[in-house]
Amino acid sequence: MTTHADDLTQRIGAPVELAGVAVRRPSKVREGIDPALITTDATALLKRGDIDIAIEVIGGIEPARTLITTAFEQGISVVSANKALLAQDGAALHAAAEAGGRDLYYEAAVAGAIPLVRPMRESLAGDKINRVMGIVNGTTNFILDKMDSTGAGYQEALDEATALGYAEADPTADVEGYDAAAKAAILAGIAFHTRVRLDDVYREGMTEVSAADFASAKRMGCTIKLLAILERAADGESVTARVHPAMIPLSHPLASVREAYNAVFVEAEAAGRLMFYGPGAGGAPTASAVLGDLVAVARNKLAEATGPGESAYTQLPVSPMGDVVTRYHISLDVADKPGVLAQVATTFAEHGVSIDTVRQQGKDGEASLVVVTHRAPDAALSGTVEALRKLDTVRGVASIMRVEGE
Amino acid sequence: MTTHADDLTQRIGAPVELAGVAVRRPSKVREGIDPALITTDATALLKRGDIDIAIEVIGGIEPARTLITTAFEQGISVVSANKALLAQDGAALHAAAEAGGRDLYYEAAVAGAIPLVRPMRESLAGDKINRVMGIVNGTTNFILDKMDSTGAGYQEALDEATALGYAEADPTADVEGYDAAAKAAILAGIAFHTRVRLDDVYREGMTEVSAADFASAKRMGCTIKLLAILERAADGESVTARVHPAMIPLSHPLASVREAYNAVFVEAEAAGRLMFYGPGAGGAPTASAVLGDLVAVARNKLAEATGPGESAYTQLPVSPMGDVVTRYHISLDVADKPGVLAQVATTFAEHGVSIDTVRQQGKDGEASLVVVTHRAPDAALSGTVEALRKLDTVRGVASIMRVEGE
Repeated sequence: MTTHADDLTQRIGAPVELAGVAVRRPSKVREGIDPALITTDATALLKRGDIDIAIEVIGGIEPARTLITTAFEQGISVVSANKALLAQDGAALHAAAEAGGRDLYYEAAVAGAIPLVRPMRESLAGDKINRVMGIVNGTTNFILDKMDSTGAGYQEALDEATALGYAEADPTADVEGYDAAAKAAILAGIAFHTRVRLDDVYREGMTEVSAADFASAKRMGCTIKLLAILERAADGESVTARVHPAMIPLSHPLASVREAYNAVFVEAEAAGRLMFYGPGAGGAPTASAVLGDLVAVARNKLAEATGPGESAYTQLPVSPMGDVVTRYHISLDVADKPGVLAQVATTFAEHGVSIDTVRQQGKDGEASLVVVTHRAPDAALSGTVEALRKLDTVRGVASIMRVEGE
Repeated sequence: MTTHADDLTQRIGAPVELAGVAVRRPSKVREGIDPALITTDATALLKRGDIDIAIEVIGGIEPARTLITTAFEQGISVVSANKALLAQDGAALHAAAEAGGRDLYYEAAVAGAIPLVRPMRESLAGDKINRVMGIVNGTTNFILDKMDSTGAGYQEALDEATALGYAEADPTADVEGYDAAAKAAILAGIAFHTRVRLDDVYREGMTEVSAADFASAKRMGCTIKLLAILERAADGESVTARVHPAMIPLSHPLASVREAYNAVFVEAEAAGRLMFYGPGAGGAPTASAVLGDLVAVARNKLAEATGPGESAYTQLPVSPMGDVVTRYHISLDVADKPGVLAQVATTFAEHGVSIDTVRQQGKDGEASLVVVTHRAPDAALSGTVEALRKLDTVRGVASIMRVEGE
């Protein structure tokens, strides 16, 4: 039986040698790693002169950014899993890689082990991607799946996710959508051959999603997912990038993505509707993606070539959220008296928003009104909601949720 | 707005020029193609001296094989969509490509536009694939999906598929599993870094699948799909490759692949369970895959490098179907009298096959017995069925179907 190092050698065409491992805590026992390879000085390791490829799995902005830049200056190619850094400074890093004539690969930065960066950068290089819609955060999908399947509230589901190790002690990056937004920025840039930075991505977390929202979703034949949605405008002249919870029909393939799995739908002009599914996080899946990149970069090195660099030639502007065309599911608490529906309907009409369905429920002088709109610009929809809040017959807006995937 | 040719230029880093198109019927009107580029002499086109990349979408063994070989001799890289040829002569074609220092890419040969060859060859190059299970033929999936959703019989569903253009006038290659078997051979070679030829793939078609089988599947919470299943043996020393209809649980992601869509499940040691889903055939999806390969091969050409070639270093033997471990769902017509079940159970025990569930139904002296086994080698299972046929209380074996995906 061949060992794993032998497999890598066969697949690359030359042996790879682990030259050093830079860590913060050198005293920690690391099974299978020769202690002589451990150092705390990453910069010295990069400058040693005999390194071909560096793997960066530190995460965060610094010192990762400086180290990657140092690597390129030293003529070292880089495999990174750093979504935050790539979403913030991808353009500068790609430029540094190109200046050094080296590779920057980062399959592990988005959706863990799911091959996504390479298929989008390479397999679909002859096609035109119009839309990407994905579940790119396993923690929030686990929480939402729990809420859907057990009827639990957000806090209860979060507690279970934390207990099982799916959520970190501070879950902010996941539940507020920052992690998904970073991945969205990276994917949008690749999909549309343009530059999308983290700041360009509209972001809403999922901490406000309630058991009542799931009940509403079920009545519509939907479930709720935290989605990253990247779209090319109908005229092709701009793109949008956003992360928010949304209702999607149970018939949509993303609806059946359970637990902490990730899945990304890609709609391309010629290829049609593709989906990529798998574990979105975890040590072993990340290692699979990193080693896949390592093999590619090592092969490029042997061939004295580089793989595809940044492709941002379209330079399409990123439109604000207000321009995104979507649908709203709105739950209103209203006075239970005649004329309320007419007043509400007038408000929608005044904002140019057309109503798909209305459902009224009343008891004891209180009533609720659930309105699902047709497609309209987000600015018109949110303007409608603001106007509804000001109606004296509307006691409150219980929830607003976008409806996608139809 | 950029044109498509401009996009290709940007993504490759140099313009691509259509040098010629070899066709069988030059008089056919081809919109958008300069008639001066059309020729019937493919060999002369390849030998003209100014060709860098040839795209082969003829299909079949000859003249495709001779033309591809000629291309490599002329230092021309090849993008092919030819599954039959690759499944039969992949090793020789890869050797010819390597001898000429050129690329052979064939993403379009398997599962149409779904990026599958590249992710398996490159993204998972640092991982160990243990199992691939996929729906790789859209025609048969359309037919089986119709039978499942409407209760139609095989012939009725086939007629509809033919009327809608999903099945060819002679559907043999699809319904007898030859098309799927060719794709299975290609995928098995890539997955296990070995050589698997079409002849190594066990193959059963789906023409015998009946409405009664779907009724049985439903009772078990299953549906029926024509699957390509490629497995590494538990000891890692051999592989198996097979195509046959099988019952899979409705909870399995492949169960919800509808109409003519394809989907492939890949289980890798580190990455875990991945799925790739999309349209498996059609002109536009095939074009997407071919153009993706064209961009990659053109980039390699510019870098004076080649992409990954054949990786067959493991040279694992392909075991016969008898060694495959699976489960059987067997429907027997039996005499409705005491002792039949005991006799049947004894036959299973004699062959070392353990029974999972038995269901008896009787009326008017006739009875049926449905047995679902535990996992056992296919040879033991088929031996059991042969022995059952010889029992005087067994009037006939109504159907046998393997159960997978659990």
